[in-house]
Amino acid sequence: MTDLINNRRTIRKYSNKEVSEELICSLLEASGRASTNGNMQLYSVVITRDEEKKKLLAPAHFSQPAFVGAPLSLTFCADFHRFNLWCKECNADPGYDNELSFLTAMTDTLLVAQTFAMLAESKGLGICYLGTAMYNAKQISEVLELPHNVVPVTTITVGYPAEAPEQQDRINPSAWIHKETYRDFTPTDIHSIYDYKDEMEINKKFVKENEKETLAQVFTDVRYNKANNEYFSKQYMDLLGEKGFLFATELKNNK
Amino acid sequence: MTDLINNRRTIRKYSNKEVSEELICSLLEASGRASTNGNMQLYSVVITRDEEKKKLLAPAHFSQPAFVGAPLSLTFCADFHRFNLWCKECNADPGYDNELSFLTAMTDTLLVAQTFAMLAESKGLGICYLGTAMYNAKQISEVLELPHNVVPVTTITVGYPAEAPEQQDRINPSAWIHKETYRDFTPTDIHSIYDYKDEMEINKKFVKENEKETLAQVFTDVRYNKANNEYFSKQYMDLLGEKGFLFATELKNNK
Repeated sequence: MTDLINNRRTIRKYSNKEVSEELICSLLEASGRASTNGNMQLYSVVITRDEEKKKLLAPAHFSQPAFVGAPLSLTFCADFHRFNLWCKECNADPGYDNELSFLTAMTDTLLVAQTFAMLAESKGLGICYLGTAMYNAKQISEVLELPHNVVPVTTITVGYPAEAPEQQDRINPSAWIHKETYRDFTPTDIHSIYDYKDEMEINKKFVKENEKETLAQVFTDVRYNKANNEYFSKQYMDLLGEKGFLFATELKNNK
Repeated sequence: MTDLINNRRTIRKYSNKEVSEELICSLLEASGRASTNGNMQLYSVVITRDEEKKKLLAPAHFSQPAFVGAPLSLTFCADFHRFNLWCKECNADPGYDNELSFLTAMTDTLLVAQTFAMLAESKGLGICYLGTAMYNAKQISEVLELPHNVVPVTTITVGYPAEAPEQQDRINPSAWIHKETYRDFTPTDIHSIYDYKDEMEINKKFVKENEKETLAQVFTDVRYNKANNEYFSKQYMDLLGEKGFLFATELKNNK
């Protein structure tokens, strides 16, 4: 398994080879063995294959090729709805309309998603995570008809690979593995961790195309800029509020 | 790999067999190949082995045996600190002091944590996730000397198993796998999903011990009750605010 993960690549182009529903469901079923807080299983997944549904979801994923070209996608959702219904059926009064409960459900959800991702890759499938699931969670919720207390956390596109991309770079693991206490960084440390990125041809190209001075500026000014982060933060916080998890939104509305 | 996950158990009792630092670091290094938003790798992990550090951390984990008895634990943290330092070194102005940025980092962090968990189990190690990492994140941050923009998300205890527990139950996967749209539940559906839990001897025992009528009440009134959820929500939101992620705290403070 270590070799598999050491050699993995995110796959964004898929062949037209059929991905059977039996395979997907058996991998999802196994993924349900992942650790879950108090065995509450605070997640759901919605499988999208239908072309009409895909067309409705595509704008929420900025019509990125990985989504549009995938035979199927899975939207993993933090879900307290099912658990709350159970509580109510059992004369129990659920108190899960708060931030911690959402973050607990989000944790459960991502453990299942990543377990699925690894199992899928072990079967020769390629996968790609879409952060857009969180950016445009409201539109996705509407298309997938998600009830109260259910919120999209991530989407994974799935298919057999039709590309063999180069493996992406990673920073030296010593930069993120700390022993006993967090070892802070000097400017020299930061340069020794990250400078190789600016030296990569593909990143030089990004910098040039975006008319920036440094790769970091491509992140801060273009790919993940403050205005977008704040816009999508508000969208997601608003949705969490609407869906019954008390976050900033409600506090703002109540004040 | 499917068999491995289908047969997994969370392990809370560990033998005194040494878990080498080389093994842990090689598994962590491989885990760093997990998908990450924009290849930003917004996480850190702090390894705890030192007895003094463990004693300081134990109360934050309610001194649960899985923590106290484990040869080591790993605290996985959402980390924008290192990335922000890089931006600043590169004449770039990071705009990651918001909710979406934290949730993005939390996502990265949990994908690495779960990849590590699966790799560790594939090597015969046993693991246990501790939700207490989020409950008492502030105390943990202090012991691990986490800087601004770094927040604990989860802790995993690790060791060779000294128990062979029965596998935990899971609800029927058809209850959480939806096709095209979320299929909502009737009361009958809810009973057919969950009633088996109340019938399990171990759960009958929990209900009796806690002097409750139903298993759901053990969750809502004891294990994950509203007052605790709200208390730990506030603690975590306050920490996120202090650590530079604009959540409810700041909004509250500013109003």
